[in-house]
Amino acid sequence: MKATIITIGDEILIGQIIDTNSAYIAKALDRIGVEVKEMLSISDDRKAILDTFASLQNKVELVVITGGLGPTKDDVTKKTICDYFEDTLVRNVEVELHVVALIEKALQRKASQMNIDQALVPSKATVLHNEVGTAPGMWLKKENTVFVSLPGVPYEMKYLVDYLVVPKIVSEYERPFIIHKTVLTYGQGESLVAERIEQWEDDLPNFVSLAYLPAPGRVRLRLTARGKDKQFLEAALHDLLASLQNLIGDIIVGFDEEETLEVVVGRMLVQKNRTIATAESCTGGKIAQLIASVPGASGYYKGSIVAYATAMKIKLLEVRPETIEQHSVVSGEVAKEMAVNAQKIFQTDYAIATTGNAGPAKGDSEASVGSVFIALATPNGVLVEAFNFGQPREKVIDRAVTKSLEMMQKEILKNV
Amino acid sequence: MKATIITIGDEILIGQIIDTNSAYIAKALDRIGVEVKEMLSISDDRKAILDTFASLQNKVELVVITGGLGPTKDDVTKKTICDYFEDTLVRNVEVELHVVALIEKALQRKASQMNIDQALVPSKATVLHNEVGTAPGMWLKKENTVFVSLPGVPYEMKYLVDYLVVPKIVSEYERPFIIHKTVLTYGQGESLVAERIEQWEDDLPNFVSLAYLPAPGRVRLRLTARGKDKQFLEAALHDLLASLQNLIGDIIVGFDEEETLEVVVGRMLVQKNRTIATAESCTGGKIAQLIASVPGASGYYKGSIVAYATAMKIKLLEVRPETIEQHSVVSGEVAKEMAVNAQKIFQTDYAIATTGNAGPAKGDSEASVGSVFIALATPNGVLVEAFNFGQPREKVIDRAVTKSLEMMQKEILKNV
Repeated sequence: MKATIITIGDEILIGQIIDTNSAYIAKALDRIGVEVKEMLSISDDRKAILDTFASLQNKVELVVITGGLGPTKDDVTKKTICDYFEDTLVRNVEVELHVVALIEKALQRKASQMNIDQALVPSKATVLHNEVGTAPGMWLKKENTVFVSLPGVPYEMKYLVDYLVVPKIVSEYERPFIIHKTVLTYGQGESLVAERIEQWEDDLPNFVSLAYLPAPGRVRLRLTARGKDKQFLEAALHDLLASLQNLIGDIIVGFDEEETLEVVVGRMLVQKNRTIATAESCTGGKIAQLIASVPGASGYYKGSIVAYATAMKIKLLEVRPETIEQHSVVSGEVAKEMAVNAQKIFQTDYAIATTGNAGPAKGDSEASVGSVFIALATPNGVLVEAFNFGQPREKVIDRAVTKSLEMMQKEILKNV
Repeated sequence: MKATIITIGDEILIGQIIDTNSAYIAKALDRIGVEVKEMLSISDDRKAILDTFASLQNKVELVVITGGLGPTKDDVTKKTICDYFEDTLVRNVEVELHVVALIEKALQRKASQMNIDQALVPSKATVLHNEVGTAPGMWLKKENTVFVSLPGVPYEMKYLVDYLVVPKIVSEYERPFIIHKTVLTYGQGESLVAERIEQWEDDLPNFVSLAYLPAPGRVRLRLTARGKDKQFLEAALHDLLASLQNLIGDIIVGFDEEETLEVVVGRMLVQKNRTIATAESCTGGKIAQLIASVPGASGYYKGSIVAYATAMKIKLLEVRPETIEQHSVVSGEVAKEMAVNAQKIFQTDYAIATTGNAGPAKGDSEASVGSVFIALATPNGVLVEAFNFGQPREKVIDRAVTKSLEMMQKEILKNV
């Protein structure tokens, strides 16, 4: 089964918002063996929508559309769907009751005409009942192509995809199995990794494909197998991963598709029964937030002190005023005291600390913009590294956070 | 000038990564009056690329392509561009010297054959020299359409867009002016706002369009004006915003396109000369991180204590053990003590505190998954609110963070 995902909305075409809906839908479809051939973002414009629908008719079996279902005048999707299906809008009683009840409960006022009009749906549509919002999803079929229209609000779209669209596809269509395995490597660049596995890559069977997903300092390798026989595919991937492990086991740090550095660090801490805390300045709590974002973090993560102001570094993290005077607040010495003291305060095995100047203006220090010091207190002592991440602010913070997680990953891996 | 943006890569079509490049490029083009008609994400596949190029030929004047320029075998863009332009790859000496020097400097090894091959470019291409990476950008023209191919690594793409692509378009093409103004409203739903401004919307001149961008609790209104005369457009938008202010001034909280809640809160704190700190449990530092992400935050943000473990709430935030025993660690009473004590510890005017159970498993408390208490200490006392944000973990954390920022925004607005 082949599919195209369409996002409708000018706010995407002018770059005002980033389309995250398409990736969510793609992942959900991929998981059930539906192959997404293309994603399109098009204008809130009748002609653009009609032309796009016509160009996909009978080319793919499934078109999933998000956006353009709200109650206001700039939302044209529903009327245009009617035109495309030569249909008319009819009032759906069930949707109307739901909309009226939801508005009264959530907003404590009567539903307006605009709200009630959300219960108008094309007569040929199967309504996908939206329990978590007012705009219903719609499922319409023309010849060999199903068009599914969903609201653009992410949690409403997610609800409809997970509870209605995916189950309906699974029960009504046959699909092949698609299995992905992602190998997370650390410490070597894309071309070096490619050279080390060149022969292995050349020998891949034709039902398996390989993609490289590089990021600073690491490369993910994604293997995709397609076919009818799930067990056969799984066995084949299992063997391929084993041979890959023989070739580049020294740089492989994880295997999961979703695996981020904070997940890898979290798993290592659980395995080694170790705990961690953070003491942040320029990263402002972002390391804390990433560590805490992992389910089960409460087992190894004790907490953080974000000492943004210099006075708070002294008061809460017990950095000595002399150290700040002698070396400035953005220095390796201050980072070191922050890390060691956080380790003591939180009584953890590890503590990571950052101090730097993310810009755009200079803060409490004369350090140049982009300058960051990271210290990691471990059971065996403390490591300090100095960086300059340049500009802008966002990049400095992001790279300081990534570097911190990389330092943790490397060090925790070494220790028992 | 009309444009289409294409992202090439299977990792996008399976939802493994979210395409953020297209939004960046769209915003850069929009700013210089280039109208993006469509965004496409397509497969790393020769035929898909050729078909897409052919379908856009002479339909738009500009096609910007990202992805598929890396050194490894899954990257086919460059060869396919050659095929489309009936061209051959030739070695570019300048690029080769740059690649060799960059690899030696950054990785302290000799450039491999794969690295050096990145200096192969179609003979008809104008090379866009990539100072920050190894894959060069390329600019090729066929009949009325320019094809610009850029690497997919975001900071390399951004460098080429900002320093080479945009300046080249500006110097070589005439474009109309496009001006956007975004109005941030707070507290009323999309349909209610629409009703209040219905007549105003009907009376909009034909060179101005309006879009509604709803999010929980707030609606952004985006006005777009297009034309040849920049001053005329600016004056027209100025008048329209003034009449909008008369209609719905009570719910307008800001005017900037990029305005997020943390930016609004930051500006209010600066204006009122107030300071803030956070004491977080279930949000794990995310509120801290958002506050700190705003340039100039060091003027009003003192810091945070992320007390993830219960013991740390007692030790660092001085929450009384009796309060935890009587009410459990996930309770309004604990949130209240966290906020009030953080206000004292950091000596700030405001302090926001969160305690909750983000799931999936129950932590140090018997509170149900999704249960969150938020307290805001202000100069006039402390507010506590109770929520249940359901599941999953990610949504609970995100909604708790948004709610916290909304509480701050509302309260700081009220106070002098």
